[in-house]
Amino acid sequence: MAKQLSGAGLRGQVAGKTALSTVGVSGSGLTYRGYDVKDLANNCQFEEVAYLILKGKLPNQRELSAYKKTLQSLRSLPQPLKEVLERIPKDAHPMDVLRTGCSMLGNLEGEANFDQQQDVTERMLAAFPGIICYWYRFTHDGIRIDENTDDDSIGGHFLHLLRGEKPSQLHEDVMHVSLILYAEHEFNASTFTARVCASTLSDMHSCITGAIGSLRGPLHGGANEAAMEMIEGFTSPEHAEKEMMAKLERKEKIMGFGHAVYSDSDPRNEIIKQWSKKLSEDVGDDTLYAVSERCEEVMWREKKLFCNADFFHASAYNFMDIPTKLFTPIFVMSRLTGWAAHVMEQRADNRIIRPSAEYTGEELRPVPPMSERD
Amino acid sequence: MAKQLSGAGLRGQVAGKTALSTVGVSGSGLTYRGYDVKDLANNCQFEEVAYLILKGKLPNQRELSAYKKTLQSLRSLPQPLKEVLERIPKDAHPMDVLRTGCSMLGNLEGEANFDQQQDVTERMLAAFPGIICYWYRFTHDGIRIDENTDDDSIGGHFLHLLRGEKPSQLHEDVMHVSLILYAEHEFNASTFTARVCASTLSDMHSCITGAIGSLRGPLHGGANEAAMEMIEGFTSPEHAEKEMMAKLERKEKIMGFGHAVYSDSDPRNEIIKQWSKKLSEDVGDDTLYAVSERCEEVMWREKKLFCNADFFHASAYNFMDIPTKLFTPIFVMSRLTGWAAHVMEQRADNRIIRPSAEYTGEELRPVPPMSERD
Ligand SMILES: CC(C)(COP(=O)(O)OP(=O)(O)OC[C@H]1O[C@@H](n2cnc3c(N)ncnc32)[C@H](O)[C@@H]1OP(=O)(O)O)[C@@H](O)C(=O)NCCC(=O)NCCS
Ligand SMILES: CC(C)(COP(=O)(O)OP(=O)(O)OC[C@H]1O[C@@H](n2cnc3c(N)ncnc32)[C@H](O)[C@@H]1OP(=O)(O)O)[C@@H](O)C(=O)NCCC(=O)NCCS
Repeated sequence: MAKQLSGAGLRGQVAGKTALSTVGVSGSGLTYRGYDVKDLANNCQFEEVAYLILKGKLPNQRELSAYKKTLQSLRSLPQPLKEVLERIPKDAHPMDVLRTGCSMLGNLEGEANFDQQQDVTERMLAAFPGIICYWYRFTHDGIRIDENTDDDSIGGHFLHLLRGEKPSQLHEDVMHVSLILYAEHEFNASTFTARVCASTLSDMHSCITGAIGSLRGPLHGGANEAAMEMIEGFTSPEHAEKEMMAKLERKEKIMGFGHAVYSDSDPRNEIIKQWSKKLSEDVGDDTLYAVSERCEEVMWREKKLFCNADFFHASAYNFMDIPTKLFTPIFVMSRLTGWAAHVMEQRADNRIIRPSAEYTGEELRPVPPMSERD
Repeated sequence: MAKQLSGAGLRGQVAGKTALSTVGVSGSGLTYRGYDVKDLANNCQFEEVAYLILKGKLPNQRELSAYKKTLQSLRSLPQPLKEVLERIPKDAHPMDVLRTGCSMLGNLEGEANFDQQQDVTERMLAAFPGIICYWYRFTHDGIRIDENTDDDSIGGHFLHLLRGEKPSQLHEDVMHVSLILYAEHEFNASTFTARVCASTLSDMHSCITGAIGSLRGPLHGGANEAAMEMIEGFTSPEHAEKEMMAKLERKEKIMGFGHAVYSDSDPRNEIIKQWSKKLSEDVGDDTLYAVSERCEEVMWREKKLFCNADFFHASAYNFMDIPTKLFTPIFVMSRLTGWAAHVMEQRADNRIIRPSAEYTGEELRPVPPMSERD
């Protein structure tokens, strides 16, 4: 399918420079600072990749230990932030909770000047799992959790807070992979939101708050939740096939498929799909994984549409018993690294982002007096 | 000065269509739905312009009365929102307060589907003056204000909440003009933020929260506050001239001057300048207005840079005794109309906004084992 390369959607138009990642460059589907995402997912912990994205190099053992220690020391939430979270209703959208929590953090510990950009980013990386889980457990389980744990990884810490107990090694490993896959993706819509905001020289919390709001949309980060809602309705691969065909017939958009830049596959899919399979075997699932695979087959056969990063994330998270509505907030915990690095990059060589529009409205006309208006 | 028409800043690149306004089209500097902004500022109240922007036509008397009544009926703030505002410190940036207040409102009264887009926008238009003044008076004066007044205009309501008494006719008139001038401005950075967010099909509160964060930046809405901080340091026109020359010598950026699209004047300046003069006479000022005029002369003489909408807004608001840090929040109360209308327009003909980047980073390289890293 040829993509339209101008106008609406800015597809294919260069909106700036980046040294952070390449998306869809032939021979290497996705790289972060020159490293193939598969290589990173197979060999690194998420904290190594966060360090790479934010500080420009892979950490050595000493740097990694110090970085993890720092992140661990920054997990406590300020009391007024907890009080705000307690006032957000149970039926709120968790992305709205995170958006509000991030914005509130900016009121309590704002970025006074750009010299603090690394510090405020580390604080957010450390605090976001606590923000989402504090609210979730308070409103759903009626308890005020201790937002500190002794887990040394962000993914492990998140699962621990969510469940009240240390996760298994398998689950912690999957979190590393998942957070690595979601960490950075060039000028996607939420990152571009952060860069537009940064281009006015606004503060980091404004940029990240805005990015969270964009990621929430069903065409973007919201897709993993929508995919889950779809596949959990399918009772067998045959049922999935029938329903998918009907959706395609009705020309419905199917979440978790397609991509604005990749044209024949998303390199992240292959990786998360393997882990979803492993988790499926671990829990003894005999439906969800098979259903997911069938969806993939049907979409490729009928439409040459392929799974993006979100599709097998849905089943993987589900096998780990993560509530569907927390899927996109996990994406935030990871993509925060890419967003913040893009903000720093924009600041280092800035021009305010202010495109033009094609005017399609009324010609110049005089304001009619009130008495002469329809 | 020729403007670079590609790449960083997207200057001159078409990022979509709009029927809402034209900026810098020759013969008519700024139009909202075909009406010249000067014509609107001279003949309309802000609520007429809000209606025009959001609903597509100038209201007749019956429609205007009903619209104002609706807005008046929507001013009460939910109790949990007030409790959140009370937890934001006095020294927070008021734009961060508004960003958090808007985000919190989205948790309490979210946009369940796009059919509610007009309703949630009216709610925000009615509630924003209350949000900012409730926090301001609580943290600065130690009182919990009643966020309802019987003023029938948004500008009058705001001044009333801020001061605890009805404003004069002159002040209410200035607020109408000011809110009209700031209401809409095509694809500026904050509006573009809202459209990028909308393009993921996210909710209205996310779009507006993101836009507030972008407007906060000193290169954008923050410019009126920065201009005020500069001019209040000047004790006379001569002093202003000397300091401005020194700033230009040091190649400092001077806030309130220049524009990404206009090349020789900003049509909004002429209008707000007149009103600043009127207010200057009203308060018996003999410095600030003269200082402002001198700054304008120096910048034009030395650099052919002209005042944008923000520069004479600074003195005008100051003459009305509005605290400098509330200048940009007033901008929000107005621009909210343009932002929301752009969100609606984006939704009506959407493609996710996802530009490309020019890659300037490392070539593909293998992940080194931990022991081999520097
Ligand atoms: C990701 C996405 C927004 C990219 O948008 P885009 O670049 O504008 O895609 P295109 O418009 O070039 O798509 C080309 C065609 O494929 C169709 N298409 C794309 N994704 C589709 C999907 N998931 N289901 C059904 N049809 C799809 C489009 O409708 C379009 O058909 P048309 O030409 O008949 O209108 C889009 O694929 C999508 O909405 N996917 C579902 C949401 C999702 O999973 N998002 C997460 C992305 S990581
Ligand atoms: C509005 C603004 C961001 C537009 O940015 P832009 O489109 O990137 O402007 P340009 O880069 O085309 O400006 C051209 C030149 O004028 C200079 N210039 C522009 N505005 C200036 C200002 N306010 N003070 C001093 N120099 C200025 C630029 O530095 C540039 O000089 P250079 O070519 O030597 O680098 C910019 O004018 C500015 O920063 N103004 C001050 C902030 C402000 O008032 N914002 C409110 C806008 S409504």
